[in-house]
Amino acid sequence: MSQFDQYFLMKPADVVDYAREKLDFFPKDADLECSEIGDGNINFIFRVWDRNSGKSVVIKQAGTTARISEDFVLSTDRNRIESEILILEEKLASGLVPLIYKYDETMSCCAMEDLSDYVIMRRALMEHKTFPLFADHITTFMANTLLMTTDVVMNHQQKKEMVKRYTNPELCEITEDLVYTEPFNDYKGRNDVFPPNLDWVKENVYNNASLRLEAAKLKFEFLTNTQSLIHGDLHTGSIFIKPESTKIIDPEFAFYGPIGYDTGNIVANLIFAWANGDATIADPAERAVFCGWVEETIVQVVDMFNQKFLAVWQANVTEILAKEPGFDRWYLATVMRDTAGVAGLELFRRTLGLAHVKDITSIADQAARIRAERICLSVAERYIKQRGEYQTGADFLNTVKQFAAQFPRS
Amino acid sequence: MSQFDQYFLMKPADVVDYAREKLDFFPKDADLECSEIGDGNINFIFRVWDRNSGKSVVIKQAGTTARISEDFVLSTDRNRIESEILILEEKLASGLVPLIYKYDETMSCCAMEDLSDYVIMRRALMEHKTFPLFADHITTFMANTLLMTTDVVMNHQQKKEMVKRYTNPELCEITEDLVYTEPFNDYKGRNDVFPPNLDWVKENVYNNASLRLEAAKLKFEFLTNTQSLIHGDLHTGSIFIKPESTKIIDPEFAFYGPIGYDTGNIVANLIFAWANGDATIADPAERAVFCGWVEETIVQVVDMFNQKFLAVWQANVTEILAKEPGFDRWYLATVMRDTAGVAGLELFRRTLGLAHVKDITSIADQAARIRAERICLSVAERYIKQRGEYQTGADFLNTVKQFAAQFPRS
Repeated sequence: MSQFDQYFLMKPADVVDYAREKLDFFPKDADLECSEIGDGNINFIFRVWDRNSGKSVVIKQAGTTARISEDFVLSTDRNRIESEILILEEKLASGLVPLIYKYDETMSCCAMEDLSDYVIMRRALMEHKTFPLFADHITTFMANTLLMTTDVVMNHQQKKEMVKRYTNPELCEITEDLVYTEPFNDYKGRNDVFPPNLDWVKENVYNNASLRLEAAKLKFEFLTNTQSLIHGDLHTGSIFIKPESTKIIDPEFAFYGPIGYDTGNIVANLIFAWANGDATIADPAERAVFCGWVEETIVQVVDMFNQKFLAVWQANVTEILAKEPGFDRWYLATVMRDTAGVAGLELFRRTLGLAHVKDITSIADQAARIRAERICLSVAERYIKQRGEYQTGADFLNTVKQFAAQFPRS
Repeated sequence: MSQFDQYFLMKPADVVDYAREKLDFFPKDADLECSEIGDGNINFIFRVWDRNSGKSVVIKQAGTTARISEDFVLSTDRNRIESEILILEEKLASGLVPLIYKYDETMSCCAMEDLSDYVIMRRALMEHKTFPLFADHITTFMANTLLMTTDVVMNHQQKKEMVKRYTNPELCEITEDLVYTEPFNDYKGRNDVFPPNLDWVKENVYNNASLRLEAAKLKFEFLTNTQSLIHGDLHTGSIFIKPESTKIIDPEFAFYGPIGYDTGNIVANLIFAWANGDATIADPAERAVFCGWVEETIVQVVDMFNQKFLAVWQANVTEILAKEPGFDRWYLATVMRDTAGVAGLELFRRTLGLAHVKDITSIADQAARIRAERICLSVAERYIKQRGEYQTGADFLNTVKQFAAQFPRS
């Protein structure tokens, strides 16, 4: 019998015992220490390290309640999904996710690679740091994890079992509400529009019937298209980064949905980084360096994704009809269309909805923030309404540049 | 303890005992008799009746092996799905499916409404009987069962549970192969082309790259679009009919797929009935009566479906974005596009694939059969390649009339 045969919420001392008893990770003579490093409102996150060898591990335990629900089943299932997905992603895109050493269903916790020497990418971008390898890393991650879990590559019966296994109703509902619905009609009264932009938002979003109609079409795509096992929350806050390495974390929203949901989120969050740099870097030369790198990264993310997607396809396609000449490019064009649509949705909801991004809210100068938001919202509308026309990185970037030129700096 | 506490394959005498012991259906003094009425290669079907009251019931038991697999799990799960779906369809479209009195998981059997006074619709159509109420019945069935199980109407979390519950990998694979793949490339060598049409098929189907590309697009729609709980095998052989009543049976292929898969199958199988009448009724006046009725029915099936679909939508829509002006008609237009695509697929696969329809194979005159097949295959190609242009019943019918005029009677 072990104290860990039944779930309880661990304190740092328990975590040390747990690491000694349950993990095959530290040397026998390890001198372990532990501290809690997370903010603990959904999961409790601990770092355990050995003073002798310097080895370290992160242990993440699900709390008994979740922020979004009192239902414990939700919590534990989220953690199972997260561990399983990270293990699968490591197989498909090695080196681009934290390693999982163990998942413990009873204790509802997992032991994973310690990424303490990485930083959250959104934070780094707000400090205007650049990551020249990021486009290469994220496109390898996306092309592999996304395409390899589709019917293009997988046996269709096994893929259907995966669809069942990763059905994620509660977390999908959050996305359905916050990304696809509320930004366009504020039907729950939870939107949080920057007051100086309120009239502009009423005129250009809430009273924009043709925009709402396109949002409805995109919502049904999200509700019904079991295309690929997507990450489901792939923004720059879900990425740990350092110059030579990128690690994608937190796949708790994963489910079978449209590929464009992941690729579109990356594009949109790069645009937020660009808008922050454009609005807050006073020195024109410094601004040109950071914003120029972001622009190049937007172009590379789209173009390298397209190129790798076709290469992964070529190397792994099993579905006989997917080998028909021209089908790969048609399929990819639909992914780019969805990418533009979702990038537009993300730009809307993170600017005027319940969940803001700090890239925008941290812009202290009021006139600069008004302008940054209007650029993002205008790009968003164009992406959504003309999503069928976006194929290359230049297509995506040109719209940003066009609206940046249209709203003059004050 | 009862002999029915453990599965065994029943003989007629066992079925009488079963009906007495397990069904609350016959009067106490019933004088029961039973005979087997099915052909028994997947399911064993018995009719039990009471000589005194005249009441009767059908008992359907799953065999221990299925035609398509030695896996008994498949058999029993198919029967669970069938009973559950019929019960659900009766709730959504009352009177249009056989009533289920009992489903018995242990014995893997169900007791259902006796439809001995109905005939299989395909057989009746081959005798050139007409059913003036059919269009009204089948469109009520389709508009209600199909739309009421979508995200337009259902709570999205509950709908996701339904998607999981009715995942149907083995039977979907049959459709994926026989409907979507083999007709276009014969990759398993199982196609069965009427020899005088072989060269024509090679030229117009197997060597038709642009057609195969469209088939690939449609296949991925079938693989990934969890739009609605569809019947999955809705041809005229799955319909029991008499002049005043229509009963849709055999939903063992049911799963969450595209609405157009059901509607398209109905349209295609009406075209086969038309082709049979057109090829085999010698008397022009008689031919005009039967074919005229089929033509009118094709138009009505499409137009009444459209009309009822919008009415059911209006009365039952719950998804807030689905209420956006114009979204219902856009959604319906995509359903009509899929209807044309699937009608084309069904016309192909039932003419040149493994599973023929008797409407065509029973045409004794060789020249008449060559012509009938070429009309069907030409309509099929047009439906698939220009599927975005089909909206009204007249659109569907005009293509049939056009190709009928193009291939002269010999």
